[in-house]
Amino acid sequence: MKATILSVGTELLFGQITNTNTVFLSQQLNLLGFDVMYHYTVGDNPKRLEKLIHMAFKDCDLIITTGGLGPTQDDLTKEIACRALGDEMRLHQPSMERLETYFKKQNRKMTENNKKQAYMPSRAIVFENHAGTAPGFALEQDGKHMICMPGPPREMTAMFQESVLPYLEKKSEGVIYYRMIRTFGIGESMLETKLLPLINEQTDPTLATYAKEGECCLRIASKRSTKEEARNAVDDMLKQVREIIGEYIYSADDEELVQVTAKKLMEQNLSLSSAESCTGGMFAAAVTSVSGISKIFDRSLVTYSNEAKMQELGVREETLKTCGAVSEETAREMAEGLFQITGSDICISVTGIAGPEGGSPEKPVGLVYVGAVYRGKTHCRKIQMRNVNRNWNRNYAVLSMLDLICKLVDEK
Amino acid sequence: MKATILSVGTELLFGQITNTNTVFLSQQLNLLGFDVMYHYTVGDNPKRLEKLIHMAFKDCDLIITTGGLGPTQDDLTKEIACRALGDEMRLHQPSMERLETYFKKQNRKMTENNKKQAYMPSRAIVFENHAGTAPGFALEQDGKHMICMPGPPREMTAMFQESVLPYLEKKSEGVIYYRMIRTFGIGESMLETKLLPLINEQTDPTLATYAKEGECCLRIASKRSTKEEARNAVDDMLKQVREIIGEYIYSADDEELVQVTAKKLMEQNLSLSSAESCTGGMFAAAVTSVSGISKIFDRSLVTYSNEAKMQELGVREETLKTCGAVSEETAREMAEGLFQITGSDICISVTGIAGPEGGSPEKPVGLVYVGAVYRGKTHCRKIQMRNVNRNWNRNYAVLSMLDLICKLVDEK
Repeated sequence: MKATILSVGTELLFGQITNTNTVFLSQQLNLLGFDVMYHYTVGDNPKRLEKLIHMAFKDCDLIITTGGLGPTQDDLTKEIACRALGDEMRLHQPSMERLETYFKKQNRKMTENNKKQAYMPSRAIVFENHAGTAPGFALEQDGKHMICMPGPPREMTAMFQESVLPYLEKKSEGVIYYRMIRTFGIGESMLETKLLPLINEQTDPTLATYAKEGECCLRIASKRSTKEEARNAVDDMLKQVREIIGEYIYSADDEELVQVTAKKLMEQNLSLSSAESCTGGMFAAAVTSVSGISKIFDRSLVTYSNEAKMQELGVREETLKTCGAVSEETAREMAEGLFQITGSDICISVTGIAGPEGGSPEKPVGLVYVGAVYRGKTHCRKIQMRNVNRNWNRNYAVLSMLDLICKLVDEK
Repeated sequence: MKATILSVGTELLFGQITNTNTVFLSQQLNLLGFDVMYHYTVGDNPKRLEKLIHMAFKDCDLIITTGGLGPTQDDLTKEIACRALGDEMRLHQPSMERLETYFKKQNRKMTENNKKQAYMPSRAIVFENHAGTAPGFALEQDGKHMICMPGPPREMTAMFQESVLPYLEKKSEGVIYYRMIRTFGIGESMLETKLLPLINEQTDPTLATYAKEGECCLRIASKRSTKEEARNAVDDMLKQVREIIGEYIYSADDEELVQVTAKKLMEQNLSLSSAESCTGGMFAAAVTSVSGISKIFDRSLVTYSNEAKMQELGVREETLKTCGAVSEETAREMAEGLFQITGSDICISVTGIAGPEGGSPEKPVGLVYVGAVYRGKTHCRKIQMRNVNRNWNRNYAVLSMLDLICKLVDEK
């Protein structure tokens, strides 16, 4: 089925916000097997909105709109959609009751214009909004389908997952199931090359690679007549994928590396502290973004200057002079010095050249050493990054630290 | 003049990339005084592309396209645009020469399909591409204007600034000049309320407020017959704005607070170290994102656990017990302890409750204390944030630290 995504909102035409709804919906519709033909954006203008709806229905059988379902006069998506599909607006009692409850809970008085949000096309299937006040709906007429959702991304994505996805799965021929596999330590082209036999042989499940900041993702998707069949097909393929690139996979459920690492440590109750140089606190910032991490995370000593490295971690002046601040020896002494202070189960360290300045022929920008003390042994990894830019390099160094932690903990 | 922004590229319809070009162009066109009526996105499909061009020209006199100028068979924007405006393609010798030079420099052989990029509509004004191989162009016919630019954002924005902006300034009646004013410590609605007299009285310059993550921006824009007149009008208005909200303004040139702070410290050669709790390294990560900061930034002690606070910074057990880790006393002792160790010109500290857990009626989520030792005195600020979410709260705490540093350094 061919589809158009129609975004309504003058703020989009002013460039005040980025249209992330369209990205999300495009991904979802493609996964469901719909062909997305157009994205349209229009302001809060009834004439132009109506024109676009008629235009989209010339080529497409499905229009999904976001925005324009609010309580004010210029929120008109619902009324225009209703008219375009030859229906009329009527009070939708369950929506009215939900609205009343919502305002009672918030201890706010419901104004007249809020009631507008409880009016729906008479033939609509109404979708509840658990993150805001505007309900959404689906409306059909002569094989043409229209789905209207609220504009705020948080409300829209929640409504999509809960109500629109099941509705569309019924319209789509077959059911799609997919898993997003996340890898670290392998580039996109190498990943693709290694998986080429699987990619070329297969029409279902399909395999698609995506480059992310410093990592690579692989989507395995299958479309079958039942969800179970599709899931089995994906999981069988995942087994084959693991045989080829298993060592690089850190999640088969689209989790972040920092989440995976934190979960491992919290489950095994392993305490953690860090000594950072080039990452300048980014490792600690990433780890402490995980709620509840205070149970196992003790501290990070961000020793940016050489003096701080000596004073805080006991790195020897001799080492800094002869080997340099960016060296295996310094990384080891940082981790070992940290262990002397904190005694954490895992003491991780990092030193490197984030750039753009500070590189040399022997030690180019992008050179990083990661050290770790774990179970009485000091480990060290040398990494030469491809130097994209300062921020990318620093982020990659953080991922390398997390990756080393996972590998050590998994080794047993 | 009414305008449509038309994005060409199948990857957009798959949701593989976010359309940032449209955001950029919408902002720029609005600033130039154009009315953006629609955003359209279409795949690499000549029929549908042509349909959209004709549709857009029904309401609009200007279409700006991005994408589809590459060397391959399915890059067809140029040919379709040419046909739509009744022109024909011809070899554009200067573009051909630039292409040849480009490939010679890169030591690569130019293939036949690359030559396609040197063909242009015969009446086009050609825009050079200094960041890639595909030139752009403008084409006019009977008052209808079409501008075609390459899709990669880096190439597009460079070409826009260099060539398209001057071209459009001539089409727009008058010249626009604007400044983006950045503030911290005042909410958007309060900012608007305070400036309401100016906002209501004025038609030119115009004032518009924007909420950013934890801060607020104000755009002052003027459209006059010359750039100098517009600049003078904006600067006069800025003076009036400063009289009302001057204390909250940290940049009149759209700089980040961390950049402004780092510049101040580097110019005055003031050394800096930090002691972080709730921000978990985010302050140090922000400061060290500034290249060259190693000249003045010494270290950050991210003391997440109470033990680390005592061990690293000498916070007294008594203080933690009686006042708690999140208290003015702890913030003071953190900053003072840090000063004992580093002797940095500015020693800044932070402790707070980032949430979602850890709050209480007396100390709710979002409560933060920022401490600083500067010129022999300890300063402390208590901040109750409005608790948006963990990440927002942590970011706001970092901004509060930077803001305190700026205020102290400016006091003299």
